[in-house]
Amino acid sequence: MESVVQVSGTVISRPPGQENPKMPTGEIEIKVKTAKLLNSCKKLPFEIKDFMKKTEALRLQYRYLDLRSVQMQYNLRLRSQMVMKMREYLCNLHGFVDVETPTLFKRTPGGAKEFIIPSREPGKFYSLPQSPQQFKQLLMVGGLDRYFQVARCYRDEGSRPDRQPEFTQIDIEMSFVDQTGIQSLIEGLLQYSWPSDKDPVAVPFPSMPFAEALASYGTDKPDTRFGMKIVDISDMFRNTEVGFLQDALSKPQGTVKAICIHKGAKYLKRKDIESIRKFAADHFNEEVLPIFLKTNENWNSPVAKFIMEEQGLELVKLLETQEEDVVLLTAGEHKRACSLMGKLRLECADLLEARGVVLRDPALFSFLWVVDFPLFLPKEENPQELESAHHPFTAPHPSDIHLLYTEPHKVRSQHYDLVLNGNEIGGGSIRIHNSELQHYVLATVLKEDVKLLSHLLQALDFGAPPHGGIALGLDRLMCLVTGAPSIRDVIAFPKSFRGHDLMSNAPDSIPPEELKPYHIQVSWPTDAETEKSSLNHPCRSES
Amino acid sequence: MESVVQVSGTVISRPPGQENPKMPTGEIEIKVKTAKLLNSCKKLPFEIKDFMKKTEALRLQYRYLDLRSVQMQYNLRLRSQMVMKMREYLCNLHGFVDVETPTLFKRTPGGAKEFIIPSREPGKFYSLPQSPQQFKQLLMVGGLDRYFQVARCYRDEGSRPDRQPEFTQIDIEMSFVDQTGIQSLIEGLLQYSWPSDKDPVAVPFPSMPFAEALASYGTDKPDTRFGMKIVDISDMFRNTEVGFLQDALSKPQGTVKAICIHKGAKYLKRKDIESIRKFAADHFNEEVLPIFLKTNENWNSPVAKFIMEEQGLELVKLLETQEEDVVLLTAGEHKRACSLMGKLRLECADLLEARGVVLRDPALFSFLWVVDFPLFLPKEENPQELESAHHPFTAPHPSDIHLLYTEPHKVRSQHYDLVLNGNEIGGGSIRIHNSELQHYVLATVLKEDVKLLSHLLQALDFGAPPHGGIALGLDRLMCLVTGAPSIRDVIAFPKSFRGHDLMSNAPDSIPPEELKPYHIQVSWPTDAETEKSSLNHPCRSES
Repeated sequence: MESVVQVSGTVISRPPGQENPKMPTGEIEIKVKTAKLLNSCKKLPFEIKDFMKKTEALRLQYRYLDLRSVQMQYNLRLRSQMVMKMREYLCNLHGFVDVETPTLFKRTPGGAKEFIIPSREPGKFYSLPQSPQQFKQLLMVGGLDRYFQVARCYRDEGSRPDRQPEFTQIDIEMSFVDQTGIQSLIEGLLQYSWPSDKDPVAVPFPSMPFAEALASYGTDKPDTRFGMKIVDISDMFRNTEVGFLQDALSKPQGTVKAICIHKGAKYLKRKDIESIRKFAADHFNEEVLPIFLKTNENWNSPVAKFIMEEQGLELVKLLETQEEDVVLLTAGEHKRACSLMGKLRLECADLLEARGVVLRDPALFSFLWVVDFPLFLPKEENPQELESAHHPFTAPHPSDIHLLYTEPHKVRSQHYDLVLNGNEIGGGSIRIHNSELQHYVLATVLKEDVKLLSHLLQALDFGAPPHGGIALGLDRLMCLVTGAPSIRDVIAFPKSFRGHDLMSNAPDSIPPEELKPYHIQVSWPTDAETEKSSLNHPCRSES
Repeated sequence: MESVVQVSGTVISRPPGQENPKMPTGEIEIKVKTAKLLNSCKKLPFEIKDFMKKTEALRLQYRYLDLRSVQMQYNLRLRSQMVMKMREYLCNLHGFVDVETPTLFKRTPGGAKEFIIPSREPGKFYSLPQSPQQFKQLLMVGGLDRYFQVARCYRDEGSRPDRQPEFTQIDIEMSFVDQTGIQSLIEGLLQYSWPSDKDPVAVPFPSMPFAEALASYGTDKPDTRFGMKIVDISDMFRNTEVGFLQDALSKPQGTVKAICIHKGAKYLKRKDIESIRKFAADHFNEEVLPIFLKTNENWNSPVAKFIMEEQGLELVKLLETQEEDVVLLTAGEHKRACSLMGKLRLECADLLEARGVVLRDPALFSFLWVVDFPLFLPKEENPQELESAHHPFTAPHPSDIHLLYTEPHKVRSQHYDLVLNGNEIGGGSIRIHNSELQHYVLATVLKEDVKLLSHLLQALDFGAPPHGGIALGLDRLMCLVTGAPSIRDVIAFPKSFRGHDLMSNAPDSIPPEELKPYHIQVSWPTDAETEKSSLNHPCRSES
């Protein structure tokens, strides 16, 4: 098994009845004249065919064997083909220039997630960039007016289950373009490069303002393959006697939200509802009330008795409920209540699908643009101060630009996200091309040290054209296209969730004398620190 | 100048006599209806047109302006187009799969030139690979039988005038292939992707054994655009009375070598010859004798009187000398004498071209395969021990495999270099696919710690197919194709020769608290060390 042989002979048909239509070579066999063993194979640690039965740690340790599986071959070959089609579209059909940008760069302000690389100059470090953002903008200033790159990017986030410390993005920037221009470019790109064994991509993609995504789906990346939208039913309860609703509505931005789970009364069990309520209590510290609709007039819920007939009819109308549905209801501040309901919506979809209801067709690819994001968000640690919702180079929405100097928190941006089946697969924006505006945003609004970005500010001063761009996350996109359970299945040699290469055992120790040229030494943690850190990672082995 | 304006109006012909045929838009002008200033340009630090007049430091500091020059636009756009054609050839015409390999890897044995990256685990480091060598071989074991990648590679060599700490190679590996197979693939690749504004590439490329390259050109990367080959004239001097020749010939591998500089007596000045002799004395500690041939019978040289008429005629015949030529002659150990003569050959070519003689046609691209390299070389610091001439995965030449166990220093390899106009632009080999052979080479011949490569040895044990590959240096290739004076002119954002990004000022300091998550601290050098290091880099500024 799995040895490499060189055979010469005559190709003949298989004897009648011995054909195997499942094998590509199932109709033929070879009448061997000579055979030579080129390399033998030792006893395998696992059967190549049993793709899914192995632990992932074992698969990663013997990645070179795992790559022989039909699934990994399909995933990696499709990835190569799709990227090639993207290149044809951009380079050959639309005049883009593939420019390689450096990965040994300087730390960006606040770049806490950037890997650092000691140089041979004492105390001086390079940094591996999280994206070629600055370089792509500088290329626009440099007159390379249509840039793209399949760019390796780096993010040091420690251990994350489905992130990789190095990842790849399709990185695009254009001069003299607006939001619509970038969006139709990307729609055409995906349509052109989409695998021929899938249904073709329909364009243009629908678009949804961020505020609507939040209100209807409780997230900035709605899965629009199914409904079950969040409905605001605050008005129904303005005069309610139910304590926690009354309480919530009396606060600023207090709301009552509901989702209707179609046939929920049929498919969801009592313990499902309990786990949903527990989730809401544990993660959001919120109450969730279920209403079981035996019929539209026969409600089984603790609040039922407080709902007037009129209100009941209103609820049925707003939520379009039918017999055997379940309505989940919560109350609280708008964003928070939406966010909770968004999570429950996905949770309920999982539960229904586990009971055999088909909600999300695996052959369906539902693209969506989410637009009109806020330009700034209050800082989590200090809500009086603002930080960029995406990055400080994002241009404000033209209709809101006057608010920048008076109420910056109200300014919408020209940022756009591309969402596929509830996953963010790309994001971009029109950038600020005016040096003064960029300086104002950095210095006055964000209170950043502008010195660290002086080269970019200076560049904008030398006739920078209006420009914008986007980056698509290639690993995530390929994961969705191939239906792989993890992005590690569309990467040839991924790191484990702890950032290890389980095959070669990277990262590894380096003797102190080899650190000398870089003028660094290891600060070994004390015993107490080690203990604390090993508590965070209770098992040393990942298998 | 260089501001960005949006103009609408009517395109009309320029008035007769005002056309400018040198401009792409020189025949037209626009009758302006509306004009809008999109972004203004401050006073420029240099004129965009004056590409070559600026210092390189200034160009790199304002790279975004430098990129607007006609030359940089041509170089970067041509690079993108050529790489796109290469991808079409490999992916679409020859079934190669573009696979991205990790750049956060583990240090390879002896990888002193690999940048290191501290991880969040105390004392554990990733390493940036010098090439995807191990991964590409593992892909062959994994059944991705035709791999390619435009791969970013890293080499920390400190300050080198025409090297970059990060560079790009066209990286290729194939299963079931021999040396000829890889060579014709690459010939086809270059022919297919060659710019249409140049003369087409003629294939197949000539091939030359390493021993011949050394003997005739004194280098493993001969510039075959011109002759002036090295000739061994040892036999003529077996009974010489000239002291230093006698001396050299009496030693093992002692030889006398000569090159003939056509029309040298006409073009080279006395001081040129003196500088050549000084170079030989300074760098090789060798004497070089010039012979000026006024006519073939009238020699002007200190050795002339010791050369018999018969010897003279032999020399004329061997070197094909003509009137007004100069012969340079040296004596010494074969390799050393060849190497010196190879250097002088190029030196003389420069001198002749400075005097207006055309030796190397700039429109001529002279490709050459250099083959049959030795597999091992004696270590410089300890000539009793052997090291790999290229890397330890290179397969021995099939005809020499028996010598591996008896006289390993005599074994030739299946390595091949691709040379263009005297520059190495690629190198590759057929690899060892047998685990036992690989183990023998690593452990017994090279005395390496096999544990560090155990994953590779293990992989070869699981039915690895015979395989081989090559890597082309893209930056160097583009530099030669565009005729750029430096590889920095074919890279959008290169580092300075000291490894600095002069635009953003990378590498840069990082506050100690940001080093903490990586468990490292800076070991600041003592004053004495600093002084020593600043003597090596006498100027702090690179301008």
